Amino acid sequence: MTKTPDSVVRSFIDLHQDEFLRDLADWLRIPSVSADPARAGEVHRSAEWLAERLRATGFPVVEVWETDGLPAVFAEWPSGDPAAPTALVYGHHDVQPAAKEDGWDTEPFEPTVVGRRLYARGAADDKGQVFVHTLGLRAHLAATGRTAPAVNLKLLVEGEEESGSPNFEALVRREAGRLAADVVFVSDTGMWSETTPTVCTGMRGLADAQLDLYGPDTDIHSGSFGGAVPNPAEVAAELVAALHDADRRVAVPGFYDGVVELTDRERELFAALPFDEAQWLRVAKSYGTRGEAGYSTLERVWARPTAEVNGIWGGYTGPGGKTIVPSEAHLKLSFRLVAGQEIEKVREAVRGWVAEQVPEGIRYELTFPGATRPCLTPLDHPALQATVRAMGRAFEQEILFTREGGSGPAADLQDVLGAPVLFLGISVPSDGWHSVNEKVELDLLAKGVEAAAHLWSELAESWPQA
Amino acid sequence: MTKTPDSVVRSFIDLHQDEFLRDLADWLRIPSVSADPARAGEVHRSAEWLAERLRATGFPVVEVWETDGLPAVFAEWPSGDPAAPTALVYGHHDVQPAAKEDGWDTEPFEPTVVGRRLYARGAADDKGQVFVHTLGLRAHLAATGRTAPAVNLKLLVEGEEESGSPNFEALVRREAGRLAADVVFVSDTGMWSETTPTVCTGMRGLADAQLDLYGPDTDIHSGSFGGAVPNPAEVAAELVAALHDADRRVAVPGFYDGVVELTDRERELFAALPFDEAQWLRVAKSYGTRGEAGYSTLERVWARPTAEVNGIWGGYTGPGGKTIVPSEAHLKLSFRLVAGQEIEKVREAVRGWVAEQVPEGIRYELTFPGATRPCLTPLDHPALQATVRAMGRAFEQEILFTREGGSGPAADLQDVLGAPVLFLGISVPSDGWHSVNEKVELDLLAKGVEAAAHLWSELAESWPQA
Repeated sequence: MTKTPDSVVRSFIDLHQDEFLRDLADWLRIPSVSADPARAGEVHRSAEWLAERLRATGFPVVEVWETDGLPAVFAEWPSGDPAAPTALVYGHHDVQPAAKEDGWDTEPFEPTVVGRRLYARGAADDKGQVFVHTLGLRAHLAATGRTAPAVNLKLLVEGEEESGSPNFEALVRREAGRLAADVVFVSDTGMWSETTPTVCTGMRGLADAQLDLYGPDTDIHSGSFGGAVPNPAEVAAELVAALHDADRRVAVPGFYDGVVELTDRERELFAALPFDEAQWLRVAKSYGTRGEAGYSTLERVWARPTAEVNGIWGGYTGPGGKTIVPSEAHLKLSFRLVAGQEIEKVREAVRGWVAEQVPEGIRYELTFPGATRPCLTPLDHPALQATVRAMGRAFEQEILFTREGGSGPAADLQDVLGAPVLFLGISVPSDGWHSVNEKVELDLLAKGVEAAAHLWSELAESWPQA
Repeated sequence: MTKTPDSVVRSFIDLHQDEFLRDLADWLRIPSVSADPARAGEVHRSAEWLAERLRATGFPVVEVWETDGLPAVFAEWPSGDPAAPTALVYGHHDVQPAAKEDGWDTEPFEPTVVGRRLYARGAADDKGQVFVHTLGLRAHLAATGRTAPAVNLKLLVEGEEESGSPNFEALVRREAGRLAADVVFVSDTGMWSETTPTVCTGMRGLADAQLDLYGPDTDIHSGSFGGAVPNPAEVAAELVAALHDADRRVAVPGFYDGVVELTDRERELFAALPFDEAQWLRVAKSYGTRGEAGYSTLERVWARPTAEVNGIWGGYTGPGGKTIVPSEAHLKLSFRLVAGQEIEKVREAVRGWVAEQVPEGIRYELTFPGATRPCLTPLDHPALQATVRAMGRAFEQEILFTREGGSGPAADLQDVLGAPVLFLGISVPSDGWHSVNEKVELDLLAKGVEAAAHLWSELAESWPQA
């Protein structure tokens, strides 16, 4: 058999697999639960442990970065080639809380292999997927005969992702110079399934809004005044109902301005995924589908912007009845955004729409507490193509595409660094993130290492020369 | 000057005015606050005091009726004429809480005359207006030379009206035989103003509803599922918005079935009232009007059925945002009803409408906790005509008409006894019911006594013979 780069990578991984798993198990034994103040020391220990392993991997620069909360780990290995692109890998070393009493079959912080699965808190989310890059990088060097990676490689592994990344954006802003990159790879993500490897091409953004509506100065008697004055609870409801038209499109004028529409090719590739709606509904704990006309369920959650009511309240909510016209009512709304939508323009559109909708006699306040930009990489982007080729070499089958309907801290990297965000992950829906019996599939973990090994060569080769 | 019945009544009242006010003041000194358990004894003392005064007035039958709560007073004086109609007067002897520290200018339980006003808790609501019937009846006898009233007269003066009449319906049902009447007069009501005497011709009814809507089994992630599954908070809002059409008519099919429309004459007479919308809005503490197209504000609150949202809640209502599709949402609705609407048919219409509106994937429960029937007396009803003539003789000016937008225990009398409910009252909006410095205008109180004196003659004369 010819010694192709692929066979070298595979041999190298086979050779170092046991050592890799022993090391990963050591890391998984550290209960780095960021949400538990009593375990802050463990999160520090986890950061130091990872820093030490990255040094052992060969990274010439490894630093533990303190924040106002828990520490992140930064590592850097320059390519040496002045034309090489710079890639920043993002992951996190903190984990969700876990205890055997929650219903685990094994001790969550005592990694246990059963068959071809490794059970432990953090096995998939996210230590396993971060650790892929250690052996992956060594295999990359072995297969290419290089002494440094084909790209300028940076790693940023934060310690507070499971606590909502409260200090992440500030850290990224503080260290923007050190973190500068041409492309960001988020390794905190999954694939469609064990048998359908995929690459995620984007995440939706998010704009929160709160609308406070005021009618009478106090609750007033609905017998004396009902039917003759505006009721803020009713107006809140009317606004919510007016948010969508009969086709379930968001009815705020200008909301869809700039939206990057799905291409025919993307729709084809989404449709090629083996989607089982009944199963999806079970996961959603829901009893029916409802969404924008003309789009499939996957297209609705991955690629279409939405307006959602997260909360509504006003008037009497206790037992029995109270015949009042309430004095006030409130709405919490969130808008999921897709590529092409600009947060400030969406807010302006919502402001104008609310001003037009609220009837005379109702005063209101509209606030926008927070927002996250969407990210999307087109199918023909060279970094995405490189990722697909790297995954294809690892899995030896066609790589399909997904997107992520949620919104995450990865967008902070995109926003601050101005770099496109890509996703490289091998977790699958059955891995039990945030749940009991979290695991990672050992065969997929090995495929992830292979893909990471190929990624840097593919990226360097495909990178447009200056 | 010829001695007409009207001049006899007037002279009789003038002669006994001081004694009448002394007695009323004695009664007002009893702090019969039904809401205060510490004052239950005072409510009993008030009942005994009234019973004694009614005996002194000449009622041959006077009884204190115990209930599961606080006592009512019943009195009866048969006419002796087998063709005479039977009239039941309703009022209450309990009062709202009051203390000088609340901001009263005088001691609330130390009746004080200032100018032509008598200040005390209960002066207008309702002891003053009940007491009208003692001197009124004596003047009636004096003017007609009768030894018994021209009608079979019954009085029912309850002791828990200010606590929501929790035992009233049961009492009326228990004593339905003793209370049997051809017509009920509620003397717990007011007129348009000092200068515009009016008679109230009806009250709206009420049907409460609660709608509980269920979507996902738990709150689910709006990033993963938003825009693709039905959101119960949104469905609640859509139902509220769909409750009214563009003309602000209730859009529930069948809701208006049987509604007794305002006659042209009633609309003319309402329009003749000196209504100041800016002033009305100040009382409503509201900043605009909104209601059914084609009707004035007074018509909307007095004569049109409505659908009102008294409460709405679902999802996250705390500080900040939470990106969920809520698991459930709830609505408290109330429907004000007018004559001709039947509670059970309205409920059936709402049931059908909700079933049709709720989209697939949302489960719900619709309950109707309570209801009160509307009451309305047509302008040409002989008992109403008799009331208008009696008021006209007292006030010597045209009597206009109002209605009451609220719903009250009077409807229990209508429902159980099957008798029309009329209203005889001389209180005015400035009397401060439930507020500080409650008062009654002494000149209006005297007019009320006059009207009560004429009422029994007018009623007996106008009564259709069997």
